Amino acid sequence: MGATVAIAGASGYAGGELLRLLLGHPELGVGTVTAHSKAGDRLIAHHPQLIELADRVLEPTTAEALAGHDVVILALPHGASAEIAAQLPDDVLVLDCGADHRLTDAAAWQRFYGTGHAGSWPYGLPELVHADGHKQRDAIPGAKRIAVPGCNVTAVTLALAPGLAAGVVAPDDIVAVLACGTSGAGTSLKPHLLASEIMGAASPYAVGGVHRHIPEIQQNLRLASGAADVTLSFTPTLVPMSRGILATVTAKLASDAGSVRAAWEQAYADEPFVHLLPEGQWPTTAAVLGANTAHIQVTVDEAAGRVVAIAAIDNLTKGTAGAAIQSANLALGLPETRGLPTTGVAP
Amino acid sequence: MGATVAIAGASGYAGGELLRLLLGHPELGVGTVTAHSKAGDRLIAHHPQLIELADRVLEPTTAEALAGHDVVILALPHGASAEIAAQLPDDVLVLDCGADHRLTDAAAWQRFYGTGHAGSWPYGLPELVHADGHKQRDAIPGAKRIAVPGCNVTAVTLALAPGLAAGVVAPDDIVAVLACGTSGAGTSLKPHLLASEIMGAASPYAVGGVHRHIPEIQQNLRLASGAADVTLSFTPTLVPMSRGILATVTAKLASDAGSVRAAWEQAYADEPFVHLLPEGQWPTTAAVLGANTAHIQVTVDEAAGRVVAIAAIDNLTKGTAGAAIQSANLALGLPETRGLPTTGVAP
Amino acid sequence: MGATVAIAGASGYAGGELLRLLLGHPELGVGTVTAHSKAGDRLIAHHPQLIELADRVLEPTTAEALAGHDVVILALPHGASAEIAAQLPDDVLVLDCGADHRLTDAAAWQRFYGTGHAGSWPYGLPELVHADGHKQRDAIPGAKRIAVPGCNVTAVTLALAPGLAAGVVAPDDIVAVLACGTSGAGTSLKPHLLASEIMGAASPYAVGGVHRHIPEIQQNLRLASGAADVTLSFTPTLVPMSRGILATVTAKLASDAGSVRAAWEQAYADEPFVHLLPEGQWPTTAAVLGANTAHIQVTVDEAAGRVVAIAAIDNLTKGTAGAAIQSANLALGLPETRGLPTTGVAP
Amino acid sequence: MGATVAIAGASGYAGGELLRLLLGHPELGVGTVTAHSKAGDRLIAHHPQLIELADRVLEPTTAEALAGHDVVILALPHGASAEIAAQLPDDVLVLDCGADHRLTDAAAWQRFYGTGHAGSWPYGLPELVHADGHKQRDAIPGAKRIAVPGCNVTAVTLALAPGLAAGVVAPDDIVAVLACGTSGAGTSLKPHLLASEIMGAASPYAVGGVHRHIPEIQQNLRLASGAADVTLSFTPTLVPMSRGILATVTAKLASDAGSVRAAWEQAYADEPFVHLLPEGQWPTTAAVLGANTAHIQVTVDEAAGRVVAIAAIDNLTKGTAGAAIQSANLALGLPETRGLPTTGVAP
Repeated sequence: MGATVAIAGASGYAGGELLRLLLGHPELGVGTVTAHSKAGDRLIAHHPQLIELADRVLEPTTAEALAGHDVVILALPHGASAEIAAQLPDDVLVLDCGADHRLTDAAAWQRFYGTGHAGSWPYGLPELVHADGHKQRDAIPGAKRIAVPGCNVTAVTLALAPGLAAGVVAPDDIVAVLACGTSGAGTSLKPHLLASEIMGAASPYAVGGVHRHIPEIQQNLRLASGAADVTLSFTPTLVPMSRGILATVTAKLASDAGSVRAAWEQAYADEPFVHLLPEGQWPTTAAVLGANTAHIQVTVDEAAGRVVAIAAIDNLTKGTAGAAIQSANLALGLPETRGLPTTGVAP
Repeated sequence: MGATVAIAGASGYAGGELLRLLLGHPELGVGTVTAHSKAGDRLIAHHPQLIELADRVLEPTTAEALAGHDVVILALPHGASAEIAAQLPDDVLVLDCGADHRLTDAAAWQRFYGTGHAGSWPYGLPELVHADGHKQRDAIPGAKRIAVPGCNVTAVTLALAPGLAAGVVAPDDIVAVLACGTSGAGTSLKPHLLASEIMGAASPYAVGGVHRHIPEIQQNLRLASGAADVTLSFTPTLVPMSRGILATVTAKLASDAGSVRAAWEQAYADEPFVHLLPEGQWPTTAAVLGANTAHIQVTVDEAAGRVVAIAAIDNLTKGTAGAAIQSANLALGLPETRGLPTTGVAP
Repeated sequence: MGATVAIAGASGYAGGELLRLLLGHPELGVGTVTAHSKAGDRLIAHHPQLIELADRVLEPTTAEALAGHDVVILALPHGASAEIAAQLPDDVLVLDCGADHRLTDAAAWQRFYGTGHAGSWPYGLPELVHADGHKQRDAIPGAKRIAVPGCNVTAVTLALAPGLAAGVVAPDDIVAVLACGTSGAGTSLKPHLLASEIMGAASPYAVGGVHRHIPEIQQNLRLASGAADVTLSFTPTLVPMSRGILATVTAKLASDAGSVRAAWEQAYADEPFVHLLPEGQWPTTAAVLGANTAHIQVTVDEAAGRVVAIAAIDNLTKGTAGAAIQSANLALGLPETRGLPTTGVAP
Repeated sequence: MGATVAIAGASGYAGGELLRLLLGHPELGVGTVTAHSKAGDRLIAHHPQLIELADRVLEPTTAEALAGHDVVILALPHGASAEIAAQLPDDVLVLDCGADHRLTDAAAWQRFYGTGHAGSWPYGLPELVHADGHKQRDAIPGAKRIAVPGCNVTAVTLALAPGLAAGVVAPDDIVAVLACGTSGAGTSLKPHLLASEIMGAASPYAVGGVHRHIPEIQQNLRLASGAADVTLSFTPTLVPMSRGILATVTAKLASDAGSVRAAWEQAYADEPFVHLLPEGQWPTTAAVLGANTAHIQVTVDEAAGRVVAIAAIDNLTKGTAGAAIQSANLALGLPETRGLPTTGVAP
């Protein structure tokens, strides 16, 4: 066993998923697990699936508790990472699953989060293709601070970036509508997240340009397209499933229809975790459940003048915890795929 | 009890829902119930909820079996209505829940259905607002043949038509993405409709401009906008719920943002079944389960230059069976709301 | 419109279901709606399905607010009914959907609830067959105070009482295991009731003789059997659905197998809301969704020496709100079935 | 990579799960995959989660196709294994996930399956504790033919066997009621397995002593108890989840209550895959999703005179495919736990 990993915020869903993945990782070991209001609880009271860690107790989230590990992963509410991160040694690899260090534009942070900007860290979406053809992966090896992308962001970005980078779709009128599982909303006790309210129900939230993932998607798609501005209509909907995001993304066709598919084929041909499905087969979130995998399909609707690209991910795996481990692998010099499942638990 | 109603195709989901509603209707009575391959079966074997009709047996779908009723409702697969409809007397009210008689454009029918066009009947979506301000309702009283709209069509049309009719959104680049319950796919035994495949899964189907509801939506939105052409990107997705459609529809803003909401308020102020929700409250399909009601909300995303209008309906009630009863009420001269539930079974 | 009904505790699920049913009742009208911590909120914020009552605001639950109605229905947490009930005039019909007035045995109340016993009211389960052949229905007409049964209690009682009353099963070793929807747990914000925890999960609760519905079931089954003691093993499990209870109840065979079915046939032959299904057809909760109906089937397992009786109800309708309206109809001298749906919203 | 494994019946759910597990197994490799009616199809058309095997095509299930592997796992319908198994060489390890070779009693086979008995193979439930204290594990190392247990059988057996072996519960009046996910019913296209029918529904099946798993459970519990006869009432119910079995099993208390828990503690203290949960924590199927793990809890209901033991497993993993790999590991001399996940994918 090589390195030890501490998890801050281990009582939440991202924390539980990080621990599930670490238990199956041959070179990363589970270190201290911490929590805020749940400190003192047994870990298994919050994560009955972690039967192998049945004797673990949650410690308070402090720099002291997190000290002495090779890696620290922060799975804290947005806005809570910056303070604790600032107290961690520079030579420890720190990955932030929250939003605090994702945006490079302080004004965008201020506009969507309403607090002071903590600055930005190298962005942990290795498969993000840039306009010049290189990928975001290049920024990660050796990094000591990594911002893990948002789950909705990952789905939308992976769905559309190849088309923007190849210039086959336009960046000026993108529409994304997502079907999202409830675990993305975390463990907060809100009436609309009760099972009785969710089962049998589909409903939108944060409609009309107010969702906090919008500037992060735009940041990624600017990198992909090279355009100064990316215009995006973004509507997430909650549907009755625990995990999974299905992102339906359309953009205006900017080339002949025949060259569209090649953009995605080329971008993802060698990717271990992002797959363009065989023609005619569309993604389903079930096929990526628990896997660090994105399934993607794309087609052209010539009558509508739009390309439709659809991505399915597990919001907790490829959308959060798996992405963190993938970037940790890269940062530590391990094989990128080490310890990460690629087969979904289906049906 | 005034009129008797025969149901052709009573073993399917639309047939079951028609019977549920008729059992609660004070002036329409259940007559003969017929089926094709299920003829001879007890009705309750297919619809255990219809306990009051436990002694009914499904008869074969023939003109003879359907004779002698005041109303015949056809709940048959697409393409199967025209032949039987042609055999029914002119003075019987016939409502077709299938697609056969919805499209006025024979070429569009041919393109999407690939068979000969049966002609079009008066279209049964009373709340559809036309560009000149009148509503589709006017076409229904006294009609003897009525085409009941498609379920996805109803959701998208009701969501967007007021904005088009008022000129506050543009008809040239509409994007609709729907989260749909599985009952819309009917009782056909297909692997992807098995419960094991659906639970935990969101997946798209008929992507890229090929769904048969597209020309019907365009037909409606042309009436609403007065435009010769309506451009529509339409993507339905299956999500894990039995009933319900949540349609997220965006169109380009064509006026100042402040005048948008008034278009919807005005269109639906007096409608008994279509409701613009209070500002800030977004539709959920749970709230319309089993009800002949559409819940709608609209907002402007100025940064994206788009209006987002979202509608929730129950695909079997307001989307099919309730719509049929509503039009039957109008055609027969009964109060439009007679016998139709407006309160959803929630949670 | 005859009588007006006030609902105390209208922000909860039972309150919402009462209002849904009252909106469809031809002779009972919706009066004041009250709440505790939600007082001052708009009703529709908690019950988006009650679009017809969109202008209603929740008042505080006080005797003053509830005054001036013909009927008051209390949909309050257990233990909260007695105090407010004592302040209501004797000539007002009061129905308590909580547990406070169900048990006749003060010691049993004390043992399971741990507080002082408020006394017992006439018990509102009309179809409960007593050992002497009469039914509980007889106690209700003209009553001014009625205790509405618990939802699990209704399912288990209706499943087994006919066999006990006829002496074809024994009361000394009954085993009941229930699959329960989450709405029975109400709107309380508990982590295990979050949608993310419930979807994909089946789990038991209150195992080992500690569930508060046990003494109430025993009370009913003593009336049915005439036995001084009824021995019951009772295990409820939460399964991923919002509404519905499926109660699987087994008891030792105490007669020849051939006479078993007749006991249920006889008990429920004339009941409008309780149905023994055709032989070979087993209940499903989907068939009673939103209906005031219980579906029951029974068989003999001779090798095991046990009768298996299974009942399906909607916990909010026949299990709570529908039962309250049914008893109110009886108490007020209205037809028992008035305003109550009998067809489930399926599929 | 050590041994290669061929899968017969790879288009079904058990086949897919076997392949998922094999892809994560460091010493077993995926060999030929075969099917019956689906032969010629691409594997990924049936199992979109198996993206790593996207280029595989299903071959017809013949002895020739299965030849040349170290291990053959049969995931075929009941009754289809015997013929193909007879054609496989004696020195190949063959595991049968079907029922054909589980029962030692030919008469019981005949009674429940109605066909000729194929004989019995060593039974692959390592953790089954026998009355004399040894475990079924002893029969597996070196075996060349192994009968993989039924999924419901595994849940009921693991729940109750320790109590029977220790004599703290009686074998003469056991009652088991199960909440089962739909994937246990496989991919057969039956109306009651459609998603529209299952979501929102709980319903029983094979009620009254007719389920084919009954003789297999009795066979196991006879081994556990040493009793000549085991009396069992067994009722499975379908609930709206894809995977998972929650078995609620009660048996009469046969000792003082204080000695009950120790029986389970002792039986499972050293088991890597079967866990008695901490007191007060009850199993949930979510915690074992995709894991080869059984979670168990037990309590005494003294008033009812019964012990209640509850087990949760994933029917496709510990209930079928994981069990097969576990036994294959043992038979091949590999560590029993090799390649098998123990952490559930929750929430």
